[in-house]
Amino acid sequence: MTATETLASTDLEFARQLGQQLRVDSIRCSTAAGSGHPTSSMSAADLIAVLISRHLQYDWSKPKEPNNDHLIFSKGHASPLCYAMFKAVGAITDAEMMTFRQFGSRMQGHPTPAIPWVDVATGSLGQGLPIAVGVALAGKQLDKLPFHIWSLCGDSELAEGSIWEALDKAGYYQLSNLTAIFDVNRLGQRGPTEYGWSLDTYRRRVEAFGCFPVVIDGHDVTAIDRAFGEALSATGKPTVIIAKTVKGKGFSEIENKEGWHGKALPPDMAQRAIKELGGARSLRVKTAKPEPGIPATKHANGPVTLPAYTKEDKVPTRKAYGDALLALAAIPNVVAMDGEVSNSTHADEFAKAHPERFFEMFIAEQQLLATAVGMSVRGYRPFASTFAAFFSRPYDFIRMAGISQANIRLVGSHAGVEIGQDGPSQMALEDLAAMRAIHGSTVLYPSDPNQAAKLTGLMAETDGIVYMRTTRGAYPTIYGATETFRIGGAKVVRQSPKDKVTLIGAGVTLHNCLAAADTLATKKISARVIDLYSLKPIDVKTLREAVRVTKGRLVVVEDHYPEGGLGAAVLEALASDGSLHVAHLAVKGLPTSGKPEELMNAAGISTRHIVAAATKLLKGK
Amino acid sequence: MTATETLASTDLEFARQLGQQLRVDSIRCSTAAGSGHPTSSMSAADLIAVLISRHLQYDWSKPKEPNNDHLIFSKGHASPLCYAMFKAVGAITDAEMMTFRQFGSRMQGHPTPAIPWVDVATGSLGQGLPIAVGVALAGKQLDKLPFHIWSLCGDSELAEGSIWEALDKAGYYQLSNLTAIFDVNRLGQRGPTEYGWSLDTYRRRVEAFGCFPVVIDGHDVTAIDRAFGEALSATGKPTVIIAKTVKGKGFSEIENKEGWHGKALPPDMAQRAIKELGGARSLRVKTAKPEPGIPATKHANGPVTLPAYTKEDKVPTRKAYGDALLALAAIPNVVAMDGEVSNSTHADEFAKAHPERFFEMFIAEQQLLATAVGMSVRGYRPFASTFAAFFSRPYDFIRMAGISQANIRLVGSHAGVEIGQDGPSQMALEDLAAMRAIHGSTVLYPSDPNQAAKLTGLMAETDGIVYMRTTRGAYPTIYGATETFRIGGAKVVRQSPKDKVTLIGAGVTLHNCLAAADTLATKKISARVIDLYSLKPIDVKTLREAVRVTKGRLVVVEDHYPEGGLGAAVLEALASDGSLHVAHLAVKGLPTSGKPEELMNAAGISTRHIVAAATKLLKGK
Repeated sequence: MTATETLASTDLEFARQLGQQLRVDSIRCSTAAGSGHPTSSMSAADLIAVLISRHLQYDWSKPKEPNNDHLIFSKGHASPLCYAMFKAVGAITDAEMMTFRQFGSRMQGHPTPAIPWVDVATGSLGQGLPIAVGVALAGKQLDKLPFHIWSLCGDSELAEGSIWEALDKAGYYQLSNLTAIFDVNRLGQRGPTEYGWSLDTYRRRVEAFGCFPVVIDGHDVTAIDRAFGEALSATGKPTVIIAKTVKGKGFSEIENKEGWHGKALPPDMAQRAIKELGGARSLRVKTAKPEPGIPATKHANGPVTLPAYTKEDKVPTRKAYGDALLALAAIPNVVAMDGEVSNSTHADEFAKAHPERFFEMFIAEQQLLATAVGMSVRGYRPFASTFAAFFSRPYDFIRMAGISQANIRLVGSHAGVEIGQDGPSQMALEDLAAMRAIHGSTVLYPSDPNQAAKLTGLMAETDGIVYMRTTRGAYPTIYGATETFRIGGAKVVRQSPKDKVTLIGAGVTLHNCLAAADTLATKKISARVIDLYSLKPIDVKTLREAVRVTKGRLVVVEDHYPEGGLGAAVLEALASDGSLHVAHLAVKGLPTSGKPEELMNAAGISTRHIVAAATKLLKGK
Repeated sequence: MTATETLASTDLEFARQLGQQLRVDSIRCSTAAGSGHPTSSMSAADLIAVLISRHLQYDWSKPKEPNNDHLIFSKGHASPLCYAMFKAVGAITDAEMMTFRQFGSRMQGHPTPAIPWVDVATGSLGQGLPIAVGVALAGKQLDKLPFHIWSLCGDSELAEGSIWEALDKAGYYQLSNLTAIFDVNRLGQRGPTEYGWSLDTYRRRVEAFGCFPVVIDGHDVTAIDRAFGEALSATGKPTVIIAKTVKGKGFSEIENKEGWHGKALPPDMAQRAIKELGGARSLRVKTAKPEPGIPATKHANGPVTLPAYTKEDKVPTRKAYGDALLALAAIPNVVAMDGEVSNSTHADEFAKAHPERFFEMFIAEQQLLATAVGMSVRGYRPFASTFAAFFSRPYDFIRMAGISQANIRLVGSHAGVEIGQDGPSQMALEDLAAMRAIHGSTVLYPSDPNQAAKLTGLMAETDGIVYMRTTRGAYPTIYGATETFRIGGAKVVRQSPKDKVTLIGAGVTLHNCLAAADTLATKKISARVIDLYSLKPIDVKTLREAVRVTKGRLVVVEDHYPEGGLGAAVLEALASDGSLHVAHLAVKGLPTSGKPEELMNAAGISTRHIVAAATKLLKGK
């Protein structure tokens, strides 16, 4: 037994040795993989060593323990360090660590929640800290548990606006349960960062954003230890530890040198590095376990009575969403957040009734998404809303939430040219394409208030990224209050055995399709009308039956650009079917301002266009 | 003639009266429209009045004059103020102003470049200032002209991270030709902003981000005047004027009151407001004209010799892009920018050779886009690059660039599962869907270096949002150096009259299709292979011919999620054709890390899957 091995794992000298072990293991696994980011791991090794041996409270055998701390690697490319840490705490074996980046291994290039101790996928920079803010909000306001949230950030990612959205909200909501650790190693991928080791630049920014900065030497274990202590005792403010570090620290051949980002050391260099770092070690950290805790907010179902509307009601689907969300508050872990437009999305009904479960994110849509993901990490059921167009702002966050397999619900109001006079900047005309392409997404688009309310209810039960598009204006109520809907369903709202053509719409265009069917009926043409309220998953069976009856003649109408939306959804579903004759009506030009009717008319998606398209299909192809 | 009308238009009292006129006109046009944002216009009226009468240098009769100042309404919802300003300077008539928000009028709900004095569409908050930074970079570094860039921002949008990306870059690049004006009226859409009138919070942030803050009363024309003077004389730093203002200023019934965001005054209230504001006026501003100027960088074409590769070369398309971009430097107004990954995208070749035309945006993809748009405003031809996955970060900026009808070129490298070990966070698997859905976009995806180089050359000549997806790995060179390609083209790379099935790929999957055709040939099945390198616009003719010859049997293979990509592009193009029997192979599950071959195999898009799909199609549907 060596001297080191006799050290208590809470000793600072142990932490120093542990830092070297984390470096050695970061090199070993990345050299074995032939790729990865050892140098970005080596800069942060001492920070992580001190954290896991002396401050983190985490039961590695119980990753679901509600009072565990959270540790989120915002710099996800430091995955070798993350996996070396898992080995050091005994969560994984050395052998598993060495499967880094191999096909089939959960030790992926960047961390994902395929690993039970990883909360969210990172690797798109500037997302881990915003999500940590969401977790911290849940901890403070919903769980009311003393666990702490730590997030390790690279200095390159401090150029992302999302980092400042996150620190702003952390300061605004006084999240003293949050500590961000800036690993300022001065070097990005292609060269020096904007501010190098100008720690004071970061200090001033952090302070101005309402957080408590602590500037340290990130390789001085005593200083690190003191900083973490300060962070844990800070009151009223989140802490940001600004640590001056050296990229590749510990191996003199590459320390602080450009050209070593994201490169595994060749085997011979790795050997020299390991030697210089004092050789391989197998120190075992005994991370302190937290006191068990029970969240103050229950995770249970509740008896939900969704709102119901009569056929006389003319209620916008966005209002029905607001009413239904309020009803869903009967489920204790339903929470909501909005991007400063809750009086338009109607999330304000929930906000007024349940302020403790509502989170105002102001006009910061990236943080809106990140907060939802953070809430999902803590097991809550978040509903995030803004204008549908503005979900394009956090699209990368939605993409990453798909990879994280987070369970979040997004509701975008004011979609398409239907919004009218506000003009194209406020019109979502690409959201269906963008949202359908997200991994594990569900995409819904109701046309009437009873349907919107029922789908909102289903959203609470649906995992993954669930998106619903709501409409600004009020249209006739089509369905009775007892009608049922399902994820993946469609409704045939008009049919007869004599149907010659099928009109397919969703949301506002369903109303246009119904009016078109009326017009066609006066011309003795029987038209089937399908309400495709679930774009993904899609009801192939109902579509296929329509193809059969109306001999492949479909008119698909969408308030969306032609690419990737309703038309693509139908065509992708029916790709393998023969005899398709599909007219696809969509918003093909750039819209302007005007009344909804004027704009739908200009776009070629109004009733008369549907009638013309259907008539043309019937006259031959 | 009243006393006011005898004032010189540069007099401060004139500016005071002009502020009232701008308020009155903001009310008049929005009340006539029945919607719009008069109160958000009224808070900023004095700021704009002083600016246009005493500081702005702009020849309204020559919006293309290269030395005109730029004035960008980042708070695009203050469009009534913007249009009232156009009237005050004589650019439009009162009658045209009064067509606000009517169908067919260029006075849309939010400003767009349908109006010649508007540089870019705004209305998605937090975008105008970042684009102003791009314009300022062009002014300082390329045009080398003394024009000044002014951007009016709302206080709500200061919550957007993109504002801080912008100020960071403005400070970093010492853009003293830029002045941001924060109209701090304390009230957002649904209630108070985060920091209300805590001007000091903004001052500290602005200072920490390297800009020069000037805090003033935004209704004191003397203070405003002094602040603009300071901004124009500031050296080395951009200025941010932090103006305390009152929402609805000038009409006591609504001044500083909640509940009046985005609401036109009813006619009776409007009448009272106009009376309180001193009635309608028709002051005419004589904005100072700039000295004419000629940009230091020429806007001309140059003799470009694109790189050529032999069939023996195995060069990744991303490298061919870098080589071609370097060649395009022969065109003096081609400029490039990258998000700190130029050594991966290969934009670094251009950066090294032409540092004065290369703009490092670090890891701030929103600013990367905004800079490209700003360069487009000044007539440059920007090429912006990062990993394809990370173009999801500025998706809202791309959407708005489409509405602005900006001319920008985006090149995303490292797409799809092909990237291998880095794992899903670095894989673009939704970019084709997202980019296709952008208004006026062109979407390209080359498979070989000669093609990538030629398409890069074509990008320089193509307007709109032009996106090219490049590939990480090297694959065989398919085309000779003299082969020609076109936007909207496709190549039939293998064909015979006996073709029984068509295989369609692009980028890496084209190589898989070619290998599959080889395998099928050994089974005596003749397969046509189409290289669909232009996804949008798409070569319908070539597709239709393949449908005819191979009786509707198509196998489409894409390294992308199933929704909205290559498959959708083909199906949308052929929607109206009968007898389609399409097998659509795409990345249907969530990928992990691994070697490219392992991941393509797991995703079901490798050679053997194509062979199986083709064989199945031939056995009947």
